[in-house]
Amino acid sequence: MFTEKLNRLTDQKNSLLCVGLDADIEQIPRHLLNEKDPLLAFNREIIHATSQYAVAYKPNIAFYESLGADGWLLLEKTLQMIPPDTLVIADAKRSDIGNSAHKYAETFFQTFSFDAVTVSPYMGTDSILPFLEYQDRGVFILCLTSNSGSGDFQYLVANSEPLYLKVAGWAAGLNLEYGNVGLVVGATHPEDMSSLRDTAYGMPFLIPGIGAQGGNLQSAVLFGTDEKGKNVLISASRSIIYASGQTDFARQAGLAAKKLRDDINRIRDQKTKP
Amino acid sequence: MFTEKLNRLTDQKNSLLCVGLDADIEQIPRHLLNEKDPLLAFNREIIHATSQYAVAYKPNIAFYESLGADGWLLLEKTLQMIPPDTLVIADAKRSDIGNSAHKYAETFFQTFSFDAVTVSPYMGTDSILPFLEYQDRGVFILCLTSNSGSGDFQYLVANSEPLYLKVAGWAAGLNLEYGNVGLVVGATHPEDMSSLRDTAYGMPFLIPGIGAQGGNLQSAVLFGTDEKGKNVLISASRSIIYASGQTDFARQAGLAAKKLRDDINRIRDQKTKP
Repeated sequence: MFTEKLNRLTDQKNSLLCVGLDADIEQIPRHLLNEKDPLLAFNREIIHATSQYAVAYKPNIAFYESLGADGWLLLEKTLQMIPPDTLVIADAKRSDIGNSAHKYAETFFQTFSFDAVTVSPYMGTDSILPFLEYQDRGVFILCLTSNSGSGDFQYLVANSEPLYLKVAGWAAGLNLEYGNVGLVVGATHPEDMSSLRDTAYGMPFLIPGIGAQGGNLQSAVLFGTDEKGKNVLISASRSIIYASGQTDFARQAGLAAKKLRDDINRIRDQKTKP
Repeated sequence: MFTEKLNRLTDQKNSLLCVGLDADIEQIPRHLLNEKDPLLAFNREIIHATSQYAVAYKPNIAFYESLGADGWLLLEKTLQMIPPDTLVIADAKRSDIGNSAHKYAETFFQTFSFDAVTVSPYMGTDSILPFLEYQDRGVFILCLTSNSGSGDFQYLVANSEPLYLKVAGWAAGLNLEYGNVGLVVGATHPEDMSSLRDTAYGMPFLIPGIGAQGGNLQSAVLFGTDEKGKNVLISASRSIIYASGQTDFARQAGLAAKKLRDDINRIRDQKTKP
């Protein structure tokens, strides 16, 4: 079960930190361009430097598929380098009609052995069900996203409830079957975190928007976690993996990961050990 | 410009037909399993048999990426076999925050040279803009989808307007800049086709749901097309490419494509030559 595994590893590694592996050839330190496979070398160093602090890695699939077949090979090799005590989450935001959704689920849970995947809710129930059939994996449904465009539809009010809360309630319904559904909730919406935690009781939150996107860490941890200060992944990508563009990039990434892990834990302590 | 190209090729080939290339190893005729690359052989035969009737091909990316790197190579080789007088549309339903959306746009418009791509609206404007920057390509936004789950959110009424119509109006706004936005509208919603055509005046519709999904062809063509009986792609996948599971599969696919193209044109004539 994904949620149990997340919370067990959170205890074991004392961490809620998820590191986004968004390797971009235009962003990595220039000296790596001399390597045979610069992006793989970058991911290897980043993983090596951060894995003691991270409970999960989250490759954003956009960065890999933009390279075509080579990118999918890079993804495969990257996954092999991630230690077994760390979860891997495919940030894919997929969704499609039933028979195509089956194929997407196959991609991330069979062809690649991800522990969880992100999916988009717009197409409704039958676009999500094929993912849920993989009962031991997690399915994070986009709910309230961290970007500026989240205001375009997610806050629309229908029957006196904003769309994102309807999505959360619907996701909670889907979660009843196998307990393998979570929500993506941006840290850029601190004021809504707590009502979402009520609606989605017991479901894990994947919280992006910390770091480069300027989200609020304090409220994400205080209001996003459950009463034990768990059931959450706080995700940061650019602020960790591109902490330095020099030859010390891996060491700086490790320091940034350690600092964020510790900052998160201080807020957890505030909440659970008053 | 994508829309001009679509309508020029529609005239040239006298067709609104889009064939979905959803090649699935479990569905293709058994005798092809003896081929070195069964799925490529299947696509080659299907394209050869249907390209005179189709104005566009639409590979659903789920079917390719489920094969990992091999699938992206298959996609690349498949695109090379499609004649230049036929559009290629990536049915990808992607969307992500700005910097990731940039990468997705790069995937489909640079790494692969698709004429158009499908995207999901849930994350709002900044998740779509990077695609629109490719001004000569088309971007079809999911609006009212053909599946049963379309009822979960797309019909929710906010400020006395259903979500799908809000998406259509918003898409029409995005279209003002470069005129390269279209809508995905399922043929399974014939009663809503005409109000969508009013809201999205001048924008192309990609209409799936014909064939295996049981959509209504008559109303899709009558109400989906513009006053010249154009600006629409009617998409069918399984009902054409799996018309036969025997050695005559390509011939049967060609016949099914011809029949659907002709059926569509009869309804267009009904509308434009009363």
